[in-house]
Amino acid sequence: MPDADRLARTPEPPYWVVLFTSQRTAEDPEGYGRMAEAMAALASKQPGYLGLESTRDADGVGITLSYWASEQAIHDWKRVAAHAEAQRLGHERWYADFALRVAKVERAYTMATSPHAGL
Amino acid sequence: MPDADRLARTPEPPYWVVLFTSQRTAEDPEGYGRMAEAMAALASKQPGYLGLESTRDADGVGITLSYWASEQAIHDWKRVAAHAEAQRLGHERWYADFALRVAKVERAYTMATSPHAGL
Repeated sequence: MPDADRLARTPEPPYWVVLFTSQRTAEDPEGYGRMAEAMAALASKQPGYLGLESTRDADGVGITLSYWASEQAIHDWKRVAAHAEAQRLGHERWYADFALRVAKVERAYTMATSPHAGL
Repeated sequence: MPDADRLARTPEPPYWVVLFTSQRTAEDPEGYGRMAEAMAALASKQPGYLGLESTRDADGVGITLSYWASEQAIHDWKRVAAHAEAQRLGHERWYADFALRVAKVERAYTMATSPHAGL
């Protein structure tokens, strides 16, 4: 069965998103996995957190989307001490390459509300 | 070796992004794979196309980010006939659930230009 929890249930736009695309190194999969889980749990407790979507393929290419109520919420999350340490380790050990983008979501729909629903 | 081509080389912001998060059904993996490749190739020929990043895990959860120079470019791509047919088949056959969001990228950095570079 598909796990519906993998898709974030975000409110009506506008809101903000951090797009993090990365290529993992082959190093330290256990440490990386533990940190990724800890950061997802910590992010979910931050003010302004709206949800998270994340996936990674067998070649180590991953995309994580975190949704936020405001730019300030993103700014504050970036500076949480444990998160700053995770960023440092990511740079040093876990990522061969990454890109981080901050964007404002203007429009959104889901399968249920798409123009093709009911076809 | 990491494949650097999996990360899009986008210009300086602002630009636009379509975030497509999906849960695949178990149906028709060959047909889906062929269509996904054909759509990526077709998108890359559209005016205003800036790049694509896409990944899917073993549970069928995928995220595709396509980058565009303008909202108009997104609007035009949505209406390309072959793409409209792919959307219809996606709704009918390939996706158990999806969310589509349109966002304006305001800020971006990469591993090479991040504040932690050189640590």
